Amino acid sequence: MSLVDSTTAPPQAAPGSVKDRSLAEAGRSRIAWSAAYMPVLTQIHDRFAEERPLEGVRIGACLHVTTETANLMLALQAGGAQIALCASNPLSTQDDVAAALCDYGIATYAIKGEDHATYYSHIESVIATQPQISMDDGCDLVTSIFTKHPDLLERMIGGCEETTTGVIRLKAMQRDGVLPYPVIAVNNALTKHMFDNRYGTGQSTLDGIIRATNVLLAGRTLVVVGYGWCGRGIAARANGMGAHVVVTEVDPRKAIEAVMDGYRVMPMNEAAKIGDIFVTVTGNYHVIREEHFKLMKDGAIVCNSGHFNDELDLEAIRGMAQRRIEPRPFVEQYELRDGRRLCILADGRLVNLAAAEGHPAAVMDMSFSNQALATAYLASHYEALEKKVYDVPVEIDEEVASLKLATMGVEIDTMTPEQIKYVASWSEGT
Amino acid sequence: MSLVDSTTAPPQAAPGSVKDRSLAEAGRSRIAWSAAYMPVLTQIHDRFAEERPLEGVRIGACLHVTTETANLMLALQAGGAQIALCASNPLSTQDDVAAALCDYGIATYAIKGEDHATYYSHIESVIATQPQISMDDGCDLVTSIFTKHPDLLERMIGGCEETTTGVIRLKAMQRDGVLPYPVIAVNNALTKHMFDNRYGTGQSTLDGIIRATNVLLAGRTLVVVGYGWCGRGIAARANGMGAHVVVTEVDPRKAIEAVMDGYRVMPMNEAAKIGDIFVTVTGNYHVIREEHFKLMKDGAIVCNSGHFNDELDLEAIRGMAQRRIEPRPFVEQYELRDGRRLCILADGRLVNLAAAEGHPAAVMDMSFSNQALATAYLASHYEALEKKVYDVPVEIDEEVASLKLATMGVEIDTMTPEQIKYVASWSEGT
Amino acid sequence: MSLVDSTTAPPQAAPGSVKDRSLAEAGRSRIAWSAAYMPVLTQIHDRFAEERPLEGVRIGACLHVTTETANLMLALQAGGAQIALCASNPLSTQDDVAAALCDYGIATYAIKGEDHATYYSHIESVIATQPQISMDDGCDLVTSIFTKHPDLLERMIGGCEETTTGVIRLKAMQRDGVLPYPVIAVNNALTKHMFDNRYGTGQSTLDGIIRATNVLLAGRTLVVVGYGWCGRGIAARANGMGAHVVVTEVDPRKAIEAVMDGYRVMPMNEAAKIGDIFVTVTGNYHVIREEHFKLMKDGAIVCNSGHFNDELDLEAIRGMAQRRIEPRPFVEQYELRDGRRLCILADGRLVNLAAAEGHPAAVMDMSFSNQALATAYLASHYEALEKKVYDVPVEIDEEVASLKLATMGVEIDTMTPEQIKYVASWSEGT
Amino acid sequence: MSLVDSTTAPPQAAPGSVKDRSLAEAGRSRIAWSAAYMPVLTQIHDRFAEERPLEGVRIGACLHVTTETANLMLALQAGGAQIALCASNPLSTQDDVAAALCDYGIATYAIKGEDHATYYSHIESVIATQPQISMDDGCDLVTSIFTKHPDLLERMIGGCEETTTGVIRLKAMQRDGVLPYPVIAVNNALTKHMFDNRYGTGQSTLDGIIRATNVLLAGRTLVVVGYGWCGRGIAARANGMGAHVVVTEVDPRKAIEAVMDGYRVMPMNEAAKIGDIFVTVTGNYHVIREEHFKLMKDGAIVCNSGHFNDELDLEAIRGMAQRRIEPRPFVEQYELRDGRRLCILADGRLVNLAAAEGHPAAVMDMSFSNQALATAYLASHYEALEKKVYDVPVEIDEEVASLKLATMGVEIDTMTPEQIKYVASWSEGT
Repeated sequence: MSLVDSTTAPPQAAPGSVKDRSLAEAGRSRIAWSAAYMPVLTQIHDRFAEERPLEGVRIGACLHVTTETANLMLALQAGGAQIALCASNPLSTQDDVAAALCDYGIATYAIKGEDHATYYSHIESVIATQPQISMDDGCDLVTSIFTKHPDLLERMIGGCEETTTGVIRLKAMQRDGVLPYPVIAVNNALTKHMFDNRYGTGQSTLDGIIRATNVLLAGRTLVVVGYGWCGRGIAARANGMGAHVVVTEVDPRKAIEAVMDGYRVMPMNEAAKIGDIFVTVTGNYHVIREEHFKLMKDGAIVCNSGHFNDELDLEAIRGMAQRRIEPRPFVEQYELRDGRRLCILADGRLVNLAAAEGHPAAVMDMSFSNQALATAYLASHYEALEKKVYDVPVEIDEEVASLKLATMGVEIDTMTPEQIKYVASWSEGT
Repeated sequence: MSLVDSTTAPPQAAPGSVKDRSLAEAGRSRIAWSAAYMPVLTQIHDRFAEERPLEGVRIGACLHVTTETANLMLALQAGGAQIALCASNPLSTQDDVAAALCDYGIATYAIKGEDHATYYSHIESVIATQPQISMDDGCDLVTSIFTKHPDLLERMIGGCEETTTGVIRLKAMQRDGVLPYPVIAVNNALTKHMFDNRYGTGQSTLDGIIRATNVLLAGRTLVVVGYGWCGRGIAARANGMGAHVVVTEVDPRKAIEAVMDGYRVMPMNEAAKIGDIFVTVTGNYHVIREEHFKLMKDGAIVCNSGHFNDELDLEAIRGMAQRRIEPRPFVEQYELRDGRRLCILADGRLVNLAAAEGHPAAVMDMSFSNQALATAYLASHYEALEKKVYDVPVEIDEEVASLKLATMGVEIDTMTPEQIKYVASWSEGT
Repeated sequence: MSLVDSTTAPPQAAPGSVKDRSLAEAGRSRIAWSAAYMPVLTQIHDRFAEERPLEGVRIGACLHVTTETANLMLALQAGGAQIALCASNPLSTQDDVAAALCDYGIATYAIKGEDHATYYSHIESVIATQPQISMDDGCDLVTSIFTKHPDLLERMIGGCEETTTGVIRLKAMQRDGVLPYPVIAVNNALTKHMFDNRYGTGQSTLDGIIRATNVLLAGRTLVVVGYGWCGRGIAARANGMGAHVVVTEVDPRKAIEAVMDGYRVMPMNEAAKIGDIFVTVTGNYHVIREEHFKLMKDGAIVCNSGHFNDELDLEAIRGMAQRRIEPRPFVEQYELRDGRRLCILADGRLVNLAAAEGHPAAVMDMSFSNQALATAYLASHYEALEKKVYDVPVEIDEEVASLKLATMGVEIDTMTPEQIKYVASWSEGT
Repeated sequence: MSLVDSTTAPPQAAPGSVKDRSLAEAGRSRIAWSAAYMPVLTQIHDRFAEERPLEGVRIGACLHVTTETANLMLALQAGGAQIALCASNPLSTQDDVAAALCDYGIATYAIKGEDHATYYSHIESVIATQPQISMDDGCDLVTSIFTKHPDLLERMIGGCEETTTGVIRLKAMQRDGVLPYPVIAVNNALTKHMFDNRYGTGQSTLDGIIRATNVLLAGRTLVVVGYGWCGRGIAARANGMGAHVVVTEVDPRKAIEAVMDGYRVMPMNEAAKIGDIFVTVTGNYHVIREEHFKLMKDGAIVCNSGHFNDELDLEAIRGMAQRRIEPRPFVEQYELRDGRRLCILADGRLVNLAAAEGHPAAVMDMSFSNQALATAYLASHYEALEKKVYDVPVEIDEEVASLKLATMGVEIDTMTPEQIKYVASWSEGT
C-alpha cells in the first residue's frame, strides 16, 4: 500500500509558510511516486497507522524538504505524531513538496531560496510548536532550542540526528556535560552506513563523474583516495565498470585490504602520474595538492566525493593555471603553464550530489526507516535514557534489514530451537 | 598535439548554410575540448598533416554534426581533402559546431531543426561539390547520388558507411547488382564493434537508466534481453554495479555462454515475474509484449537500448493502462487496471542516447579513426576495388588498436624472428 | 537415466588386450560415477538407444582410455555401432576402464605403460576390425590406415578429429590433395571451444598452480602471456580470485581488448619485473626466455598451460641456475647465481594436466557430445560429403548447447512467428 | 635474508623426542623453502636477530609441528628465546621438521602418530623446561600447567592463543576468575582474521572442492550457508569462478549485505532444491539436515568448511541411503532410496584442510607474525598486564600490515603534519 492513501478522507490541512499552496497537486504526485521506491518506509507507515506509537507526540523536524522527507513525515504522522517541519538548508527545499505537506496536515515552513532571516524565523516557527522530539540534519534545531529556548528543554524527551557532522557536535556537547536530552545517532546504524556509504556513494559517485564528463571508464586508471566504506564502494563499482583501480591510503591495514581485494596500492606521488580519474573520499585535508597536480597527465579528471570540499587544494591549481574554461557543466578545465590541462569537477564539492542526484531513493528509504523507528523508540523508552548520544539499537537495525528483505521478496532462515541452544552453549565454551 | 593548431594561420573560411556564424567561437572551444578525448584521431590528424594521403580528394559527408564529427572533418582536411558536410539527421546538429566548421574551411550545410525540404537541399548542396568519396551514416548520400545524380557516379571512387542499417542496404544493392562503387563497412571493424557495442553500450545504457530513474542497481534484478555484444556489455556492467543479472535468449549457444558467464538464463515469461529493470538489445520485434507486462512486478522499469524502438510493444501497455504520468523526464509511469505501475523509459527509444549522451568521445575516437583510415585506404586502393561492400582491412583495425594503445601509454610485445618462423611452420603442421 | 543400465542383460563381452580383466568391476563403478557428471552425453546415449543412428556401423577409435571416453564408447554402442578402441597415448590408459569396456562389448586394446611396439600393434588390432569411421585424438589412426592399409580406404565413410594438432595435419593433407575421406573437425565447435578453452582451461590452470604450490592468489600479480580464449579464461578466473592480472600480447587488437576488460597490458620485459606468477598460453615458442628470467623477482613462479612445452625456454633457466631442488611435487626451484630463486611448474608441460586433472567431466561432456553427434552425422550424410575437413555443423553445435541447457534445468525463449518474419525481412534490408 | 642463514655456524643441537634425527636434512630444505613464502616473518626474524627482544625468555609452545611453525620457532630463537615445542595434535607433526628443529636448537617433542600417553608426556617435557610464556593452539598447554603444575604459575609472564576455540575457553576462565596469567588472543588481529577467514578460507575451500571432485564451477549454483567473513570470502571467490552464488542466512543484516553484494538470498528449503554445491560456514549445528537432503537434486555435492564437523547432519543422510560408494578420495556418494545420489566431501570435516592443504603459507605468514610480535610484546609489557584475555594491540596489527606491504613492494602515503592536525581537530568537532 502506498504511503498516501487516496481513498480515505484527506487529513486536515496545516498552517505553514511555503512558496505557493497551489503547487500541492504536483507535490502530491511526486511524493507518491517517490513512495513507490521507498517500500520499507511504506511498511513502517502502514504499521504505524495501526499501532500509533507516536500518538500525540509533538515532533519538530529540520530536514531537507524533499519527496523522500515528505514520506518520512507522513509515516510519523500515520503513527500519531503532530509535526512541524522546516528546512535544514535554504536551497534544498522542493516548493511543491512543501505545499503538499501543508495540505497533508504537516505544518511546513520552508521556501526554496529563503534568506537568512526567513530561514531562522522558520526554525523559530517549528520551535513555537513546542516539540517533544527534535529531528535534525546537522544539529540546527537542537542548538537553537538549547541556546534560545532552554525553557522548553524540560518537556523534551529526545532527538534524532542524521549526519556525521551533527553527531560529532552532539558528542562534544555530551563531553562537556551540556547535552540537554538523549539523542539517537541515526547515522551509525549499519543499514544506514552500508547503503549510504558503500552502495549509495559507490554508484552515485560514478554517476556524477559520467554525467559531468561522459568519460568511458573501461580501460582508464581510476585512483580512489581513501579506502574506507566510501572508498571500498567506489573501488568496487569502478572495477565493475572496467576501470583499472588504484588505491592510496595512509592506514596500512586498509591498504593491505585493498591489495588483497585486487587493487594496486601506491603513494599519491606515484598514482598522480598514471591516473586518468581521481576521486577523494578521505575526510581529510588537501589530500590532492600542488605536488600532485604537477605530476598528473594531460587531461586528468579530479573530483571529490567526501563530505567537505577541502580534500582538494583548489587554490593550488588556480595558482598553477594560465587559463580556465568550462567546457561542460560541472567541469572546469585548467590549462597549466606547461600546457597540460586538468579538469576539476563540481568545484571540488561532493560530485555525486553536485553533478548527479546524490543517493537513490532506495538509500533514503533505509536511512529514513531508521529515523522513523528511532523516533518511535524514543517515544517508548525515553524514561530509561540518559542525556547521552546513543547508537541506533541493534533491534531497529535488524528490523530495517528484515523489512528491506521482505519488500524485495527475500526470505531467510530462522534458527531451530536446537541451534539456538547450540549457539548459546558454544559461547560458553563447550 | 591537438587537432586544432591555434598557432598556424587559420584556414580559409568556407561557404555553407548554418544557423549563426557568430557561434563559431563557442564551437571552436568545444571542438578543441572534445579533441582532447579523441587521442587516436588526433594522432591520425597529425600524420595526415604530414603525409597528405587525401591531397585534393573531394569528400562529401552526411553525418551527425557534432564536436566528434568536427574532429573527423579536420583530420580529413589535414590529409588534404576538400570537404562538404551535411547532417544525417535534422535534429542532431550542434549549431556552434557547424559555424566553427565553416570557419575552418569545411563547407557545412546543417541547421538544427531544419525542415524536410532544407534537409534535402543541404544534401544537394554537398552533392553539388562533386564528391569523389561519400561518407554516410545511414546511406542517404549514396542513395541520393545513385537515384538523382547518376552522372556523378563515373567519377566516384568509393564510400564509407558507419551504421549497421546502412551496411544492410548496401549489401542489398550489391546483391541486386546495383551498388555503384566500392564501399567500406566501417561498422564491421573490431575496434568499432568492441568499443561501440560492448563497452560503449554497456556503460551508456546503465548511465541512461540511472539518469532517468536514479534507481540503485545493487541488489536489484536486471533482465538483459538478448546476449549479443550489446547484451554482454550491459550484463557485465550491471553485474559490476551489484545488480542480479538475468538473461533471456532464443539462441542456445548464446544462452549457454550467459550461463557459464555466471548469469541466470530463463524464458521471458519467468524473467518478467522477477525483474526490477528490463533492457532489450535484440534487434528483434516486440520482445517484451502484453503477455510479459501482465506478469511484471509493481514498479518495474522497462527500456530499450537496441537500434529500433519496436523491441517493446508500447501499444500493448498503453492499452492496458488506466492512467499515465511522467514523474521524471524520460520516465512514463503506466498505472494498469490492477493497480500495478510500470515505467517505460525514453518512450522505448535507445535509452543511452535519449536519457544520457550516447557513446563517450573515447568510443567515437575509435569509430572515426576507422573512418579516417578507411577513407585514406579508398584514396590509395580504389583502382583495385570492385563494386562491393568491403570489411575494414585488418591492417586498419590493427592500426587503430595500436594507436589507441599508444595514446594510453600501453606498450606491447613484438614477435622475435624465431617466433615468426615458428608460428608459420606451425601453420604448416610441424 | 544413466549410461549404463544395470537392469538389462549385460552386453556380450568383447575380445581385447588389457592389463587385467578382473579390474572390470572397479572400472564399471568409476564409469558410472563419471556418467553422472556427463548429462548431455547421457541424453544422447538414451536417444541413440532409441533411434539407433549407427546401426551396424563399424567404428575404430584411438583416444585416451578414460572413464569419460568409456561413456562416449557406450553412447556410440547404444546407437548401434560396433567399436574397437585403442589408446592415443601409451600412458593415459586407465586399466580398470579398459577391462570394463571389454565386458561391455567394446573391443579394447590398451595397457597403461605399453611399449612402442605394443602401442602400434594395438592400433593394428583396431584397423583389423575394418572400421568405416575413424575417431582420432591426434591423427594416428587415419595416418596408419592411409599409409599402411590403403586397401581399406574404399570402405571408409569418414572420420572425426578431436585436437587442433590433428586438424592442422588433416588440413595439410587436404591441401596436398591426399585427404582420403571426409573428416569433421570436432575441435572447431563453439560448444567445445568455449568450454575447453575459456572455462575449462581457466579453472584447471589455476587449479594446477594452486595444487603445485598452495600459493595464495589474492593480492599477487599474475601475468597471463597471450590473450586468446585460454588467456581470457585464465585472466577472468585469476581476477576472480583476487589476483592482480597483467596481460602480455603481440596482437594489438587482443591487447586493447585486455585493457578494456580491466587488465594492465605491458611488454614481457616490464611484466617480468613485477610478476609473482606467470602463465603462458600463446601457442608460440620461447615466449619466456633468458632475458625475462634475468628480470624476475626472487620466488617467481613460472608455468605453461599451452599445448606444447616449448613456450618456456627451460634450457635457458637450467643454464642460469647453480642449484636445483624439488621442494614439492611438480615444483622445480632453480637458484640462480645471483641468489634469486625461480620456480618452474610441471617441467613446463601443461600445468592443468600435469599438476591437476585437466578438464572437468562437464567439459568432456560437451566435447564428446559433439563427437557422438558428429559421428551420427557422418553415418547419415557421408554420401553428400567430399574429401575435406568439415566444421561441426551449426545444428549440432546448437543441439549440444540446447541439451546442456536442458540438463541444467535452463529453459530459453523461442521466436514467435512474427519475430521470425521480422528477422528475415531485416536481413533483406527493410 | 632467509630465516635460516647457512653461512653462520649452526646453533647447538637441542634434545628432544622425534621419530628420526637423520630426517633433519630434508626438514631443513623444506623449512627454507617455506620461509621464502613467509616474508613478513622473515623480516621479523631479521629484526629479532638484531634487537633480541626475547633474550633469555623461556617459551613453551604447543603447536602443529609444520614448516611454517618451524619458521616461527626460528624467529623467536633469533630474538633470544629458549624454546621447547610439542605437538598440538598427534597427527599433524611433520617428522623431518621435528628432526631439523632439534638440530637448530629447538627442543622438540613430537612424533607423527604418537599415542595418547606419548602425546601428553611430550607436553610434560615442554612444561619441564619451566616456560615463562606459553604459546597455544587450543589451550592444551595452559590447561596442563594450570591443573597439574600450579607451582609454575608464579613465574609465568603470559601466553598467546591462536584459535577461536582456545580464546573462548580462556574467556570462560577469565569470567570465572581463574585465568592464571595474561593471554593475548592472536586470533583477533585483523591481519590474522582478514587473511585467514576471508582470503584464506575463500581460496582453500574452492581448492578443496575442486581437488575432491574436479567439478567445473562455472555455471553451477553454489550455495554458501552463512555470510560471515568465511562466507563472504567463499562467495566472492565462487562468483569469481563463474558460479551462480546463493546465500542462506539467519541474520537479516548479513542477508541484506549479501543481496547488495549481488547474491541471491533464500531459505535453505528453497536453496536445497536448486544448489549443485553446498558449503557450510556457520559455526552452527546441523544447518543442512534431513529436510534439506530430501529436496536436493541428483548429484548435489555437500561439504563443510566451518570449524566443527557437525554443521552437516551426516547421521541423517546415512539413514536415508541405501548404498554408499567412494568414487574418488574424499568423496562419499550416498544413493538414496528414491535413486538420487548425494555426495558428501571429506566426511563433513573442513574440506579445505581435508581435501586440500588448508591455508597457504602467505596466510600463516600473517598469523605467525602476529604470534611473534605478540610474544615480544608480552616480554616487554607483562608487568603492566592483568590476568585477562587481551586483543592483539592495534600497533602490532598495523605493523604486520606494514611489513606485509613492504614485502610486496607496496608503498603507501603518510599524513602531512597539517593533515594530522586536521584529523585531530575534526575529532574535536570543529
